[in-house]
Amino acid sequence: MVVVSFPEPLLRDAVGDVPGVDSVIWDPGSGPADDDRIEVVIAPYLGAAHKLGTVADLPQCRLVQLQSAGYDGVLEVVPETVGIANAAGVYDAPTAELALGLTIASLRGIPEAVRSGDRATWQPLGQRTSLADRRVLIVGYGSVGTAIARRFSAFDVSLTAVASRARGGDDLVDVVHGIDELPALLPEHDVVVVIVPLNESTTRLVDDTFLSTMPDGALLVNVARGPVADTDALVRHAGRLRIALDVTEPEPLPDGHPLWTAPDVLITPHAGGNTTALLPRMADLVREQLALIVAGEAPHHLVRPIVKT
Amino acid sequence: MVVVSFPEPLLRDAVGDVPGVDSVIWDPGSGPADDDRIEVVIAPYLGAAHKLGTVADLPQCRLVQLQSAGYDGVLEVVPETVGIANAAGVYDAPTAELALGLTIASLRGIPEAVRSGDRATWQPLGQRTSLADRRVLIVGYGSVGTAIARRFSAFDVSLTAVASRARGGDDLVDVVHGIDELPALLPEHDVVVVIVPLNESTTRLVDDTFLSTMPDGALLVNVARGPVADTDALVRHAGRLRIALDVTEPEPLPDGHPLWTAPDVLITPHAGGNTTALLPRMADLVREQLALIVAGEAPHHLVRPIVKT
Repeated sequence: MVVVSFPEPLLRDAVGDVPGVDSVIWDPGSGPADDDRIEVVIAPYLGAAHKLGTVADLPQCRLVQLQSAGYDGVLEVVPETVGIANAAGVYDAPTAELALGLTIASLRGIPEAVRSGDRATWQPLGQRTSLADRRVLIVGYGSVGTAIARRFSAFDVSLTAVASRARGGDDLVDVVHGIDELPALLPEHDVVVVIVPLNESTTRLVDDTFLSTMPDGALLVNVARGPVADTDALVRHAGRLRIALDVTEPEPLPDGHPLWTAPDVLITPHAGGNTTALLPRMADLVREQLALIVAGEAPHHLVRPIVKT
Repeated sequence: MVVVSFPEPLLRDAVGDVPGVDSVIWDPGSGPADDDRIEVVIAPYLGAAHKLGTVADLPQCRLVQLQSAGYDGVLEVVPETVGIANAAGVYDAPTAELALGLTIASLRGIPEAVRSGDRATWQPLGQRTSLADRRVLIVGYGSVGTAIARRFSAFDVSLTAVASRARGGDDLVDVVHGIDELPALLPEHDVVVVIVPLNESTTRLVDDTFLSTMPDGALLVNVARGPVADTDALVRHAGRLRIALDVTEPEPLPDGHPLWTAPDVLITPHAGGNTTALLPRMADLVREQLALIVAGEAPHHLVRPIVKT
């Protein structure tokens, strides 16, 4: 039997019985485990990087399965002999639908309608820019980026995708452009959705130069991580551009920060993931990963390989 | 040459030259035409039913091309010898994208985020219901209803369609249910989008019984016409249900009406059509219709046949 620790019963119950697996409950943030047979640790939903140091005390541990797509800070605290898998794919649907929701809301004037409604008065929105016919640029074309592109593709738009390196296309785009082509691509697009992973090369990717290159009236959507954009530059370009953000830097955005009151800025409070979509998808992923491990095969989405067998 | 009147130059210029067509500018709402050669009248964008009485004075007129999808009141004012075509298809994209925007905004808490933002404060939204995994019922499965279904189909939902009569399915749904099946279908769906034409049988279709049959926490989206729903019943069910409306009865909704302040109600001010998507699609339709007429063929979307040749 492979002994697997779950941080709480909710996810374990959603996963259900997996042949060959013996499950225990252990929250790595609560202190050392009292079961040294644990081979696979399912990380807590939040704060994994701060909690996973206790994995070092588990002699049999060979894999940490994260519940997040990002893994900043995790590689540093988990012993090098332990493999790490992220939860790629689990966040695709909820993040992608919020990206579309932010885009349509911003273009079609839903925030303005909410404000009129709160004043209990009917205020026509005038002619708005439709999503239909827009040229949409997806910056970051991994699992979530592709899910975003798939949803946009149903809306009569033209789609362009950018990833860290140029490569061939798929059923949604003819080619995937390299990120070095951004300066040429940005002026030709009306909606730019940023969904890159946060790392050294993407920190402040969306800076004054990036935003200056976007045409007047274009829409920037950031559903990646706050530090991917330069907040001061966002404030400066708000109004000339429309801006919709699910993430900010700093985060939470402090009360009274100038970004709150900048024109044509719509902010959701990092709400991309936390939905009813999460638990069934996380359970599906964990079930599949555990079945692979029991079968002696490599699990999916390894961000650091397994070395113990 | 077929003489065609346009209500204003903008649309005529967007249509451009059509072989065999001689175009003139005449707004039917401005009084009798001074050109009795007019065979085809392009109706004004707004208020067609109130303006088209002057068509009776045109001895050669055989077709009125509406710029709207709806044609309530038009059949009564245009002489019976004159055919009438509506603008089916032109509103598909902008209306469908607003239906999706209202749905995602309501489910994912964008109105709540706008309100926190206006108070310049970060207020987490907690766990929200995702659009992914929802059971979506489209009530009204014509041109716009199909466009709405096509967009929803990219969001990991299950789709059910209802039309006035049961019929076979398409690439989006296995079957189209008849409207008599609504009482059995409503309890099984989480999102109900209403996009029926307004007529005697659809007036107050969404009444207390309809809404009572929807499960707690379900979302009603009305992008059809205001009188399709019973406003008092909407006010009563708001809170138990989420409600998103692009149309109201009366419309405009009066200042201070109780629907404005009912809980979990999101209202846009009949903004489904008026977007940049309209002019190119209207021009494409008119161009195609005129080419058919010049070729001696029947135009599309006739809501009353042409009798003169």
